[in-house]
Amino acid sequence: MPAPIFNPLVANLSAPPIPLVQAWAEEYSGAHGPLIDLSQAVPGYPPHRDMLQWLGEAASSTAYTGYGPIEGETVLRKAYAEHVADLYGAPVEAANVHITAGCNQAFIASIVAVAGAGDTVLMANPFYFNHESTLAMLGIESRFVDASAAQGFVPDVQAIAGALTSDVRALALVTPNNPTGAIYPPQMLQAVYDLCRANGTWLILDETYRDFLPSGSEAPHRLLSLPGWQDTLIQLYSFSKSFCIPGHRLGAIVAGSEVVENVAKVMDNLQICAPRPPQAAIARAIAPLGSWREANRMEIVGRAEALHDVMKRLPDWRLEAIGAYFAFIRHPFDGVSSVVVAERLAKEAGVLALPGAFFGEGQERFLRFAFANADVATIRLLEGRLVLIAP
Amino acid sequence: MPAPIFNPLVANLSAPPIPLVQAWAEEYSGAHGPLIDLSQAVPGYPPHRDMLQWLGEAASSTAYTGYGPIEGETVLRKAYAEHVADLYGAPVEAANVHITAGCNQAFIASIVAVAGAGDTVLMANPFYFNHESTLAMLGIESRFVDASAAQGFVPDVQAIAGALTSDVRALALVTPNNPTGAIYPPQMLQAVYDLCRANGTWLILDETYRDFLPSGSEAPHRLLSLPGWQDTLIQLYSFSKSFCIPGHRLGAIVAGSEVVENVAKVMDNLQICAPRPPQAAIARAIAPLGSWREANRMEIVGRAEALHDVMKRLPDWRLEAIGAYFAFIRHPFDGVSSVVVAERLAKEAGVLALPGAFFGEGQERFLRFAFANADVATIRLLEGRLVLIAP
Ligand SMILES: Cc1ncc(COP(=O)(O)O)c(C=O)c1O
Ligand SMILES: Cc1ncc(COP(=O)(O)O)c(C=O)c1O
Repeated sequence: MPAPIFNPLVANLSAPPIPLVQAWAEEYSGAHGPLIDLSQAVPGYPPHRDMLQWLGEAASSTAYTGYGPIEGETVLRKAYAEHVADLYGAPVEAANVHITAGCNQAFIASIVAVAGAGDTVLMANPFYFNHESTLAMLGIESRFVDASAAQGFVPDVQAIAGALTSDVRALALVTPNNPTGAIYPPQMLQAVYDLCRANGTWLILDETYRDFLPSGSEAPHRLLSLPGWQDTLIQLYSFSKSFCIPGHRLGAIVAGSEVVENVAKVMDNLQICAPRPPQAAIARAIAPLGSWREANRMEIVGRAEALHDVMKRLPDWRLEAIGAYFAFIRHPFDGVSSVVVAERLAKEAGVLALPGAFFGEGQERFLRFAFANADVATIRLLEGRLVLIAP
Repeated sequence: MPAPIFNPLVANLSAPPIPLVQAWAEEYSGAHGPLIDLSQAVPGYPPHRDMLQWLGEAASSTAYTGYGPIEGETVLRKAYAEHVADLYGAPVEAANVHITAGCNQAFIASIVAVAGAGDTVLMANPFYFNHESTLAMLGIESRFVDASAAQGFVPDVQAIAGALTSDVRALALVTPNNPTGAIYPPQMLQAVYDLCRANGTWLILDETYRDFLPSGSEAPHRLLSLPGWQDTLIQLYSFSKSFCIPGHRLGAIVAGSEVVENVAKVMDNLQICAPRPPQAAIARAIAPLGSWREANRMEIVGRAEALHDVMKRLPDWRLEAIGAYFAFIRHPFDGVSSVVVAERLAKEAGVLALPGAFFGEGQERFLRFAFANADVATIRLLEGRLVLIAP
């Protein structure tokens, strides 16, 4: 009897990284104080209490028990379009919005709409691991441009120009970046957009962390104001981080209506529609919780400053980049793999961080700290913890 | 400037069928009474009030705001495993369960785990359209065995044996069937399982409608009791229909732990984890709402009888098959496409049904009635409506 086989593209994927790292934590004795978890990008504070109430109201209502529109609840598409229009000063409408069950789903739905097995998608290295694993799983070839420490982890526009051959279906970028925290400047994004446009390549921008930009209310870029942006840009967003509800699974795509139509066909196969009750709740929350989100942004800016401070007092370690949610830290262990360092840090010092190697080749000297997870007092404790595994 | 292109596998998909049909309803004048919607398989009654309360409690709790385990909440995996073990009299455990955001997602996650672009998957014709469109979207080849009216819409075991060449990665069947309602007999499923096993082919069984079997508490099959079933069977289920919560998006896979591991890698890319609050609520609901589900089953059996009755009084129309949730109806219009008939029925008579053509080739003489959506009184009204478009 021949054993049935798995899809080799899936069998060859590594196990999901977050649970792997979380398992290390169980071997930490607690000797140096409670675990400091900087592994997964989750807000360290709860949702607003009104948010919880609205979630409860929608979930217990008979209004949202049936199937909903594939593209998302009309109220949410409108509310989110208005919010984006306001933030970017651009004429974005409800028809430009497709709601998804989180931003990972926004990514895979967009990718499937524009590329299939054998096609090529360009990314920066280091990358957000689910982008790379999604492409690998679908048999789509990933090509990389370097975003090295020397350039502040912002990929070079000339390098992108060189890599954008005519077979590249999409360029997928993350700004503010996961894992490095790097914030891509508006002019750089404009230049990259122009290159994509000239090459007939979709520009997929994952802006999951844009609400935590140190600069505050300035628009992250002006691309949504350009005439014809609908034929080039696909913008992704997550409600997980800004509204502290990853467990409810909600994200959004902003794109041209033709993209929205094709994404709807994909979404129908992926899961028909995103869960409805959180859509209704977020539609109510976007405007009134604006100042709460702004306060969180300020809080996280404070956490970034605290981490800056701590790292200055640890001369063996170097904070290479810090941005909206993440810092990319150079560890002091020459020739030791980032996985070994992260594992020691977890088990011996009770600090969970992700190894650079999870984010691409050539990242062995780095660890990613999701510093936004920890409050300022906790971040200060890092000084005493990191020295525990000095070389 | 070259315009960026869409994935042709997606661009070539038809628009999702349900919204298309629902649009016809808007052209019905209401002249013959309220619209009778037999288009989408949604329960025509609300969830249990305890269910709504539990959904509200979980959604407003801070316990489920963070990311959850990819495979599903431990309480739900346990509760569902116990339920399945009980129903099938088989040793199913929590490690055999993967929770998904609905059964469409259970299907695509299972398929991606076992097949990729260029592979072949076997199905019955007529088929559930999202199964076919999912495969088409992924570049997986669909091959079909006929499940014709003459055989009560149950595919012939010999035909399956002939179609199961060594390149077939999976056989995907739906029982009780969508669209025909056909219930595959346990011996037929056993024979098909044996064929799959001998051929090294996964058997994917979508049992979304099993809680509405006319026979009640009997196990739909004995496959989960066979030693080594984990190497052949992948069973899919939806909480949408039985618990009346499609808007909350929840489904489940029962499979071997190696399948679960590979599905988890796929799910991480698809959306990290299913929404958590409904998982917590369903975990509480499975056991206590057992008798409520049984009462619904009886109610739907009554609806099936009412439809039987009505159809006997309409000699031009023929009820070809009726099962747990659907009836497959032969319409009286020789040589007229099923889409034209369904459209006329919607616009002129206010009855929404799906055209046979949506479910495969050679189905032009049929319409699918999702009769479970309508109560007995409404079903009786069909007599006066169907005659409105007599040939
Ligand atoms: C860059 C990036 N995109 C997408 C996601 C996924 O977010 P969601 O919870 O909305 O699926 C994350 C989560 O960490 C992320 O860092
Ligand atoms: C056979 C079959 N499988 C799966 C589904 C999808 O169900 P869910 O709402 O759980 O995604 C349906 C819904 O109609 C169905 O008929």
